Amino acid sequence: MAPEPVGDIGLIGLAVMGQNLILNMNDKGFTVVAYNRTVSKVDHFLENEAKGTNVQGAHSIEELCAKLKRPRKIILLVKAGPAVDDFIHKLEPHLEPGDIVIDGGNSHYPDSIRRTKELESKGLLFVGAGVSGGEEGARYGPSLMPGGSPAAWPHIKEIFQKTAAQVNGEPCCDWVGETGAGHYVKMVHNGIEYGDMQLIAEAYDILKRGLGLHEDEVAAIFEKWNKGVLDSFLIEITANVIKFKDDDGEPVVTKILDSAGQKGTGKWTAINALEAGTPVTLIGEAVFARCLSALKSERIRASKIISGPQKEAFRGDKQQFIDDLEQALYAAKIISYTQGFMLMRETAKDLKWNLNYAGIARMWRGGCIIKSVFLGDISSAFGKNHDLESLLFDDFFNKAVHKAQPGWRRVIAQATLWGIPSPAHSTALSFFDGYRSEILPANLIQGLRDYFGAHTFRVLPGKENAKLKANEDIHINWTGRGGSVSSSTYIA
Amino acid sequence: MAPEPVGDIGLIGLAVMGQNLILNMNDKGFTVVAYNRTVSKVDHFLENEAKGTNVQGAHSIEELCAKLKRPRKIILLVKAGPAVDDFIHKLEPHLEPGDIVIDGGNSHYPDSIRRTKELESKGLLFVGAGVSGGEEGARYGPSLMPGGSPAAWPHIKEIFQKTAAQVNGEPCCDWVGETGAGHYVKMVHNGIEYGDMQLIAEAYDILKRGLGLHEDEVAAIFEKWNKGVLDSFLIEITANVIKFKDDDGEPVVTKILDSAGQKGTGKWTAINALEAGTPVTLIGEAVFARCLSALKSERIRASKIISGPQKEAFRGDKQQFIDDLEQALYAAKIISYTQGFMLMRETAKDLKWNLNYAGIARMWRGGCIIKSVFLGDISSAFGKNHDLESLLFDDFFNKAVHKAQPGWRRVIAQATLWGIPSPAHSTALSFFDGYRSEILPANLIQGLRDYFGAHTFRVLPGKENAKLKANEDIHINWTGRGGSVSSSTYIA
Repeated sequence: MAPEPVGDIGLIGLAVMGQNLILNMNDKGFTVVAYNRTVSKVDHFLENEAKGTNVQGAHSIEELCAKLKRPRKIILLVKAGPAVDDFIHKLEPHLEPGDIVIDGGNSHYPDSIRRTKELESKGLLFVGAGVSGGEEGARYGPSLMPGGSPAAWPHIKEIFQKTAAQVNGEPCCDWVGETGAGHYVKMVHNGIEYGDMQLIAEAYDILKRGLGLHEDEVAAIFEKWNKGVLDSFLIEITANVIKFKDDDGEPVVTKILDSAGQKGTGKWTAINALEAGTPVTLIGEAVFARCLSALKSERIRASKIISGPQKEAFRGDKQQFIDDLEQALYAAKIISYTQGFMLMRETAKDLKWNLNYAGIARMWRGGCIIKSVFLGDISSAFGKNHDLESLLFDDFFNKAVHKAQPGWRRVIAQATLWGIPSPAHSTALSFFDGYRSEILPANLIQGLRDYFGAHTFRVLPGKENAKLKANEDIHINWTGRGGSVSSSTYIA
Repeated sequence: MAPEPVGDIGLIGLAVMGQNLILNMNDKGFTVVAYNRTVSKVDHFLENEAKGTNVQGAHSIEELCAKLKRPRKIILLVKAGPAVDDFIHKLEPHLEPGDIVIDGGNSHYPDSIRRTKELESKGLLFVGAGVSGGEEGARYGPSLMPGGSPAAWPHIKEIFQKTAAQVNGEPCCDWVGETGAGHYVKMVHNGIEYGDMQLIAEAYDILKRGLGLHEDEVAAIFEKWNKGVLDSFLIEITANVIKFKDDDGEPVVTKILDSAGQKGTGKWTAINALEAGTPVTLIGEAVFARCLSALKSERIRASKIISGPQKEAFRGDKQQFIDDLEQALYAAKIISYTQGFMLMRETAKDLKWNLNYAGIARMWRGGCIIKSVFLGDISSAFGKNHDLESLLFDDFFNKAVHKAQPGWRRVIAQATLWGIPSPAHSTALSFFDGYRSEILPANLIQGLRDYFGAHTFRVLPGKENAKLKANEDIHINWTGRGGSVSSSTYIA
């Protein structure tokens, strides 16, 4: 006889994230049915972490589906890629029209676009949900970014919004948009997270190698920063990580191999930016910085034959410089989020998604890795003006970046002379200076391209004349040779 | 009755590049048969540009093939993409085993990999040939980078090497490698070209907006630089473009719209770098700088509400600063080519191509857009050591970059304080400082990732102990909560 359908929701995949998300949903009063490919893990989980809870176990896909109320809601928390499709195909024979498959892994959004269409064509519903917050978030309240089949939202809204983190009584979860929008927004979140971490790492490096501070002094600075405009989860845990001691009293961080790993979502964001033609330079530099860090043995060999500038003791006012660095990090962060929201706007236009930017900032305000007071300010900015073209056009951020500007420049100039790499801080400033430039030297690039490749150029408004006509692709015979044929197929 | 097969080679596509390449091959003594989709263009070409030459015309694919000696050699110079496959399919019925189809357009290398396999499976041979040099190069000697079916090389070698540019009696053309290697190397060439042009544009901007020089003064500086370490085609034509006057005596460059176009090859290179995990940061910044330049109307709006630093007159020694800038451009260029060759090495490893790096530098030394004395130095470096890990490990470039370093840093620090964007110069220095750092702050990034996502880390060699074991993925329970389960599926 089939078991009683008692489960509000099912979850497949009992790695740390799955286990914690189950315990979190259980705490919120939902009955969760847990299943794992290696079935012994189910029993181990029930006898240990889930002991004394309402969590139910299933030892087969069939049992899992039988134990769920209709419409079934099943979250997959398995490795992104083929494993997701495998489980979807295993589930299909046991599902009924209207049942909801939720992918809570870090799938690439094109896969979620595809899966939404595939499942809807079979009468099922699909949700690609970005889940952020790591172990802690999953256990005590993550940021949830669901997108996919709109018809699924009413059925999962209560579970999702109660399970998510709450900030000022508002859940860090709302419907993001159609098809792949949930995983897309999560991807951009991760890209921004790469950027935030790179900025923090550069600040740590500047304080340590530049000012020569000890880890305890650096941790104290991050603790102080966490009470100001930088108040955020990453700044908070940076202090905790830096001051965490090994048994011999040495900071553990000084014993960690300096080769950063990556799982690909930052790379996806940078590639998306290149494809969209949107200058998301800070995330790009953050991803490349991790690539460079991974070339450890090559760097060791290089360090022995390439020397930097003479190290001079810092002669300026240390506290002033530390305050400048706080402003530099803040300004660079404003640029990174400006670029991230530019990218989302561009992609939404392209894929015809109607994204709620204030809502996205609200979802990120708590629960996730980049949660911060800062995101509350972004939410207000888009709340005031949904069509805000750029964060830098918002009064609050416009004032903030102007205030930060002098210190930001001093920090980069000093790091440059010290020989301490600050790719993320520097590219943010280059973007800022380029963005606020009515005229950039791209006119020369266009002249060069027309000179060697007959690529043509447009005239600058106000400079039109008989030869240089408005709205025309102009080719000049610069050399007196080569003729006036313009390039139609060639790219040099 | 079929026409006499008199043609040494056929060419399809009579845009400027096709016309010039035909006239070039004709000058070298080869009989070329010209065909174009719009047949009237064939007659127009024969009656005008090709008047009085040996160039033959064809008014159909069939006639083209009938007029060619066996094995037929047919160059396509048409728009990259479907048009190439269309023509290949149109040609196939008129070809015989051993005939050679050559794609001289800017095809993406994965397409050339595919086409090599497809044509070889039909008994035909395929060559994907990178062609660089623009109008001028095509007419008087381009850089040719052929790859694909090795069996094709002996048949096209003479035509290709005689048609290519010659430097010190050596042709700027040699066999690059299997399948897509020719178009791949051309793609990297184009990416490097994006970088070179961005560096030049930044130098122009710094001289103009920073030092406040007039175009004529700037042109004179580039002319001087063209006699030194920067001696190259792009520096030479930069001077020509900047001093080129409109009828009213104003430099035309000041009337060109400052929105740079792009056809995609720079983007492809940056995406390839991200996929390969190789930090090709300078090309990345150059591509993004073009994207930013294209946001012209947004920049105009931003320029009205975002102000930069107070512009101060330059107090230092102008000539010293100009010399510093020359060194900065040179050093950044060394970094860009270092990154480009790192990328080719990585991809060759990945695709099992055996690339001849000295040969590639020789092909680029003349004929193409990036031709320079500099590439002769790179050729010598790889000639001395084929397995050279990095240009910075070669004595010549190692000395050069050490010499350039102080001026390079002064220029970036000054541009930073002036508020003039220098993304390419800056990212090159950040790479340089990161590359020569035995220890980077990525240890903190790894600590953070393990803290919030249980991503684990490795111990720094020399710091191992009972808890921190060598060659193990280590997870620390930083918070006292969250347990010791490590993340297997989750990416924050």
